[in-house]
Amino acid sequence: MTRAASNATAPTQLLQAGNQTYAYRRFGSGPARPLLCLQHFTGTLDNWDPAVTDPLATGREVVLFDSAGIGRSTGTVPDTVGGMATHAIAFLDALGLDNCDVLGFSLGGMVAQQMVRDRPSIFRRMILVGTAPRGGEDIMHLQKPSLARHLGDPTLKGYAVLQKLFFAPTSSSQAAGAAFIERLAQRSEDLDTPSGAAVATAQLAAFREWEHSTGVGFGDLEGIPQPTLVVNGIHDEMISVSNSYRLAENLPNAVLLAYPDSGHGSLFQFHESFTRHTAAFLASDSPFAPY
Amino acid sequence: MTRAASNATAPTQLLQAGNQTYAYRRFGSGPARPLLCLQHFTGTLDNWDPAVTDPLATGREVVLFDSAGIGRSTGTVPDTVGGMATHAIAFLDALGLDNCDVLGFSLGGMVAQQMVRDRPSIFRRMILVGTAPRGGEDIMHLQKPSLARHLGDPTLKGYAVLQKLFFAPTSSSQAAGAAFIERLAQRSEDLDTPSGAAVATAQLAAFREWEHSTGVGFGDLEGIPQPTLVVNGIHDEMISVSNSYRLAENLPNAVLLAYPDSGHGSLFQFHESFTRHTAAFLASDSPFAPY
Repeated sequence: MTRAASNATAPTQLLQAGNQTYAYRRFGSGPARPLLCLQHFTGTLDNWDPAVTDPLATGREVVLFDSAGIGRSTGTVPDTVGGMATHAIAFLDALGLDNCDVLGFSLGGMVAQQMVRDRPSIFRRMILVGTAPRGGEDIMHLQKPSLARHLGDPTLKGYAVLQKLFFAPTSSSQAAGAAFIERLAQRSEDLDTPSGAAVATAQLAAFREWEHSTGVGFGDLEGIPQPTLVVNGIHDEMISVSNSYRLAENLPNAVLLAYPDSGHGSLFQFHESFTRHTAAFLASDSPFAPY
Repeated sequence: MTRAASNATAPTQLLQAGNQTYAYRRFGSGPARPLLCLQHFTGTLDNWDPAVTDPLATGREVVLFDSAGIGRSTGTVPDTVGGMATHAIAFLDALGLDNCDVLGFSLGGMVAQQMVRDRPSIFRRMILVGTAPRGGEDIMHLQKPSLARHLGDPTLKGYAVLQKLFFAPTSSSQAAGAAFIERLAQRSEDLDTPSGAAVATAQLAAFREWEHSTGVGFGDLEGIPQPTLVVNGIHDEMISVSNSYRLAENLPNAVLLAYPDSGHGSLFQFHESFTRHTAAFLASDSPFAPY
């Protein structure tokens, strides 16, 4: 009856919360707090790289989550990050999870920041990868030539476009991208429902709204005391690394780790290093982020 | 006859190289390559924090070095980084050290970059802390109000000014600064000669020269393939963290690690984390910087 703790095989589960049904996967075990993982633009449960989730599931439960309107979750994709954070908190409440760590990648990192502001008591430590603060710049402008040329390339089928978008245009980074795509394909059953155009439209609206600062500069971030690890590929075309600089400069308690020769998917490219750093960061009980 | 491997007690040694005598300390042992440490503006052998040098001396020899005109080294302080690199290479040649790693802090990080360009075969891995690429900005402008108010404060005696300059103006960072000053005071015998005004004048001229790019942008850095770890305090008033961003963006093979709540002396403030990261980085034999 032993089930491998892997996103390649973990069953997709459904959770009722009010009128809403949320799809999720929960796997791994150990004494550490569960780690909630929040996904990128148009990503589903199937877009989590087992090379990232599985090593982290050694020592803790990993919880992957489809927000409203994604995968097999019911409802409509909100057009604000705030709306997405409300869904994720409703999910945690229905799951009875009141103390965890959170890893947010890209759009998921924005949702994580909003959740930590909305319900700070739930979260101990936060990992923000390839993301941006509210009021950030150069966030998912898909019409940029460096992105549009891949998105408009009819020869790129399926995940091939993800390899171009998430990885730097070097042979080493593209090779890492090919390996990433192969790892995603390890899961062959109980697959999630891919995102369609309506998901992309709503999430892009959320990015545009997130680019508007609500206050002075990045002042929102001063109120987040949680130890945070900010991670970015240094050549990220989807969400510029400058956003991670602003996060590290304005969060009071954040370590910044930036990887060379990589783009938006640096955590997948350097999965061994990333999971080693993340595990060391999460293993610390210090009130200070440095690990 | 066992001597503790510590910069608090290691004897200062003198090495003859042509017309020049260099002062240095060499301590620690182990199978890893020796680590050459290059010092900051006006710093001598006595300014190396034992909490940084000593853990690194477990597993390898640590070599601390006074460039020409510093401490008990003879000669004149060069007014260019290139001149300082020439002295450091002459020192290594005289010592017979033809394969090592290098840790350069502040001015020392500039000298390290120049040495790696001048004699790439010597160096395997490089750690650059609180430093800047050639053509960087906001490098040691001591007339800046945030620096000048401490440098011109007659109530700050001895190392007290270093605590203000190297650490952020928070209670936590200043407390770390006070602990740093206490650790420097652990060494009570065989002290180095403190730097005077002539040292500062020549080194400031070297900073001004280093601010001029010799080529297009930061193109010099593309030719440095050595795996590099770039480290900075996020609130560095002496050499802005933006310089570490430029290093990580333009070196082809560099990981960036930035610390919160800290200034120029982040390696001293977070010495446990810094030495843990540095040891892990140096332990790697990968051609890629991520560790």
